[in-house]
Amino acid sequence: MEYLTEIKVRGYHADFYGHVNNARYLEFFEEDRWALLESKIDLKKWAREGLVFLVVNINVNYRAAVPVGETLLVTTRLERIGNKSVVLKQDIFLKRTEELVTDALVTFVIGGKDGAVLMEGDILKEIEKLR
Amino acid sequence: MEYLTEIKVRGYHADFYGHVNNARYLEFFEEDRWALLESKIDLKKWAREGLVFLVVNINVNYRAAVPVGETLLVTTRLERIGNKSVVLKQDIFLKRTEELVTDALVTFVIGGKDGAVLMEGDILKEIEKLR
Amino acid sequence: MEYLTEIKVRGYHADFYGHVNNARYLEFFEEDRWALLESKIDLKKWAREGLVFLVVNINVNYRAAVPVGETLLVTTRLERIGNKSVVLKQDIFLKRTEELVTDALVTFVIGGKDGAVLMEGDILKEIEKLR
Amino acid sequence: MEYLTEIKVRGYHADFYGHVNNARYLEFFEEDRWALLESKIDLKKWAREGLVFLVVNINVNYRAAVPVGETLLVTTRLERIGNKSVVLKQDIFLKRTEELVTDALVTFVIGGKDGAVLMEGDILKEIEKLR
Repeated sequence: MEYLTEIKVRGYHADFYGHVNNARYLEFFEEDRWALLESKIDLKKWAREGLVFLVVNINVNYRAAVPVGETLLVTTRLERIGNKSVVLKQDIFLKRTEELVTDALVTFVIGGKDGAVLMEGDILKEIEKLR
Repeated sequence: MEYLTEIKVRGYHADFYGHVNNARYLEFFEEDRWALLESKIDLKKWAREGLVFLVVNINVNYRAAVPVGETLLVTTRLERIGNKSVVLKQDIFLKRTEELVTDALVTFVIGGKDGAVLMEGDILKEIEKLR
Repeated sequence: MEYLTEIKVRGYHADFYGHVNNARYLEFFEEDRWALLESKIDLKKWAREGLVFLVVNINVNYRAAVPVGETLLVTTRLERIGNKSVVLKQDIFLKRTEELVTDALVTFVIGGKDGAVLMEGDILKEIEKLR
Repeated sequence: MEYLTEIKVRGYHADFYGHVNNARYLEFFEEDRWALLESKIDLKKWAREGLVFLVVNINVNYRAAVPVGETLLVTTRLERIGNKSVVLKQDIFLKRTEELVTDALVTFVIGGKDGAVLMEGDILKEIEKLR
């Protein structure tokens, strides 16, 4: 399995039930999104041009509870490109068994000075690097 | 508007962009779920019977960026009851304008000693109190 | 007891041990610092003048473990004013028993365009309102 | 520099000011404490014997603001052993310049069934491995 992000689950990631907390998974996904983005796209150039990533929807399935001490692997791939939006598929696996424990579809737009930009031209080329 | 949870947005709720972070909204939703649950259901009795709430899906729309200094209102209502699952609808409004800024469908099951319990009998009666 | 901040301890505040996590207490303290500051000082005016609060030291005692379900009260008072720094004393009590569970000395400076400003003149007057 | 923990600073680590948030540093320190502890001590054996690490004081200096995009290194070493307590020294450096940005003294006790255990015998031997 190819992945950019590996996370050892610590006590502070868990909640009352001793399992990774729901909100914390969103940080794990965010970590891997940035790792992917910065490996493929010149984010400083985007920032200079006033382009920002705006997440507009996250649809996340919590499939299995993960206890402290396990190690997680996070993966991200391009799912589809819409007119003005992009959908990423993100998966979190238990490293020990490769069991899928959490997965999400994350939809974002690229905000520019006049709102969400169209997925065409240079922007589209950059986004297609995420495949 | 009826609500149980009011949150003043502070600097530590925001991220790099100066807006409430995506993961933080899940804590705001969780806060209001517990506020609702404890107002309607005897959670200590449930805990004694080994019943736990397990969130299996969250589908969240981020509709508007919220800056530090605003006040948010969080509401939760029962959306539908399935065979073994329950869906809550949660909304977050800007207090100042009542604009809907974030909303989510949160699906949970009730875990018992033999897995997710059926929505029938006493359990169903308790869940229906969430209407 | 006079206080501005009351917090019901939820599952997501706790860690693996089922108690409020060490890092989370810093958010509780931060919550009450802002509640105090905004009740006494015109923070928007300070922001316009480019003045920012910079915490330079936190010395926190964890005196008792707090389980989920308890309610906490947070208080903040001015401890002392130095040449360029201010020390606040912050306490967190169990509401049920008024037991002191966590307390901290928080030292901050006011950053201006030429570094930390001296505690004199108008700034000093503003800070003295925190007594 | 020898270290176990390297952290790329992301947008979700920062707060309103665009810098790593005070509370977040405590998670970075906690991450490295566990990395050190599990590299030196049989934590599962300790758990079976009912021994837990209880942090009783954290004294943290925030020396420089760290913006998103920087990489941090976290180190932990044994500072001193008391009668019933242990003090760790933890430092966070900017990887790029090796500048010390945050440091802390973290005092913990080992909780057993009759309260904090004495630093003697087998326990002391284990703790001395942290040097």
